[in-house]
Amino acid sequence: MRIVVLAGGIGGARFLRGLKQAAPDAEITVIGNTGDDIHLFGLKVCPDLDTVMYTLGGGINEEQGWGRRDESFTVKEELAAYGVGPEWFGLGDRDFATHIVRTQMLGAGYPLSAVTEALCDRWRPGVRLIPMSDDRVETHVAIEVDGERRAVHFQEYWVKLRASVDALAVVPVGAESAKPAPGVLEALAEADLILFPPSNPVVSIGTILAVPGIREAVAAAGAPVVGLSPIVGDAPVRGMADKVLAAVGVESTAAAVARHYGAGLLDGWLVDTVDADAVADVEAAGIRCRAVPLMMTDPDATAAMAREALALAGEVRG
Amino acid sequence: MRIVVLAGGIGGARFLRGLKQAAPDAEITVIGNTGDDIHLFGLKVCPDLDTVMYTLGGGINEEQGWGRRDESFTVKEELAAYGVGPEWFGLGDRDFATHIVRTQMLGAGYPLSAVTEALCDRWRPGVRLIPMSDDRVETHVAIEVDGERRAVHFQEYWVKLRASVDALAVVPVGAESAKPAPGVLEALAEADLILFPPSNPVVSIGTILAVPGIREAVAAAGAPVVGLSPIVGDAPVRGMADKVLAAVGVESTAAAVARHYGAGLLDGWLVDTVDADAVADVEAAGIRCRAVPLMMTDPDATAAMAREALALAGEVRG
Repeated sequence: MRIVVLAGGIGGARFLRGLKQAAPDAEITVIGNTGDDIHLFGLKVCPDLDTVMYTLGGGINEEQGWGRRDESFTVKEELAAYGVGPEWFGLGDRDFATHIVRTQMLGAGYPLSAVTEALCDRWRPGVRLIPMSDDRVETHVAIEVDGERRAVHFQEYWVKLRASVDALAVVPVGAESAKPAPGVLEALAEADLILFPPSNPVVSIGTILAVPGIREAVAAAGAPVVGLSPIVGDAPVRGMADKVLAAVGVESTAAAVARHYGAGLLDGWLVDTVDADAVADVEAAGIRCRAVPLMMTDPDATAAMAREALALAGEVRG
Repeated sequence: MRIVVLAGGIGGARFLRGLKQAAPDAEITVIGNTGDDIHLFGLKVCPDLDTVMYTLGGGINEEQGWGRRDESFTVKEELAAYGVGPEWFGLGDRDFATHIVRTQMLGAGYPLSAVTEALCDRWRPGVRLIPMSDDRVETHVAIEVDGERRAVHFQEYWVKLRASVDALAVVPVGAESAKPAPGVLEALAEADLILFPPSNPVVSIGTILAVPGIREAVAAAGAPVVGLSPIVGDAPVRGMADKVLAAVGVESTAAAVARHYGAGLLDGWLVDTVDADAVADVEAAGIRCRAVPLMMTDPDATAAMAREALALAGEVRG
């Protein structure tokens, strides 16, 4: 069974761990968001790809959900001693090595997809991890500061500002001229199942779908497309998805997110049991819906979610 | 009093510390060797500049003579886990930060001299440290491996091979088209004294002199030029200077090194007391010579050496 998953960072990575447990024999291809990539200290940092790689490869900081476990911050302290920032982005020493290798390989001319494959040679995540594109796409967020509208990098909005101001717009800069990375469209065309994990619908899955050709390939795929709501009880399970949903005019409810994707993309949608009321609403939009527990409290609970997604896929396929 | 010092790494840096103690009111300009610079992991590493900067700025690993004190090696271990080397070059986490800042600034278009000045803003070495050139010069060493002649980077010869094979030739690649960095020729022209510390005469001072214009500026300077022998008792005080001296056909003796520089450059030369026999030989070559203790065993001994150099300068000037 070939499963393709469109994944952001923490939510996507944790879901993938459950999926591997639920479907140990499946061939899983992960199309990773690169819209939150950022150049820091002259190095190329790919937070979502790394979170997937570290989580599935056993190197993640479990409590935090991102970054390396047993991490130290000597390099960052030294950079600060030189007056070189930003200080708000927490790059640890172990993590730095990943970015140094990546930047060196990119500088030598390898595309990001080849670099990601090389990094995964070490981590052996048990999935094929492909960036959505080898081209640079950078998610910017429009905000208002002292009455003036300005655009900041997504990481500045998310990590530095902690989404404390309203997002007026979310723009994946460069997406319109980006091409899907090698293997992305093929994986979608050949998939037996396509999953949207409970990742951010705007800045993670939305950015992947913004690369011309990917949304079309998902819509045209013969495989069922099943998603899991990242909103539980009208609030994001983690992160600040409500902030960026508002920017695209979508309510922070499980049903609104399903309608945002739409029946043109989604065949099935899982909402949490606390949102059982939403089932009828989603089904009225032409999307098969079930209410099941959606809190990834531990690997077993996450694997159970994945099994529900596989079961719903069986239903919509049948 | 304006003193210009042509410096390599450890020997030059330690001598400079003594010189600052001996001449606390002098304005000292250091022209640093960059021929042993190397690109590692996509980063620009300048070992000699950093050794001077760390030594005078209080950040040096005293025992080792290079690298940062209280150093850790997490980044290097992680790079090795990715299979990325070389492993024979000991870059620590604190040191990595320096190279990251430098590489980022170079990438942004700043010349190495401006980058060095910016790094020194943190270290406040108490001297003006200028790289010999903003252009890339890379010292290569010709060796014979399995009967075939090949060229290796100086660092590979020095650090990886520990100079265990004969150096057949030493070539400062790129030197012939390099220009002295801004300030180098001006400092030499305006100097009251020019010093050659006990640095390597071939791969440190020799490389600096190989940048067109620098040798000529030293020779034409109105100031006395005084050097200190890096060879004591027919052996290098530290390092493996004998190996590279042989490559340029110079004996490893205090007198031979003085003759190698020649009276066209040197006005005065200090040899160690164990080499008192060499004094007449050096003076016969037209270079004023004194035998004094030349072992930099501690800061006071080093300051005494510097005072001897200042005294000899007074003699040759008079």
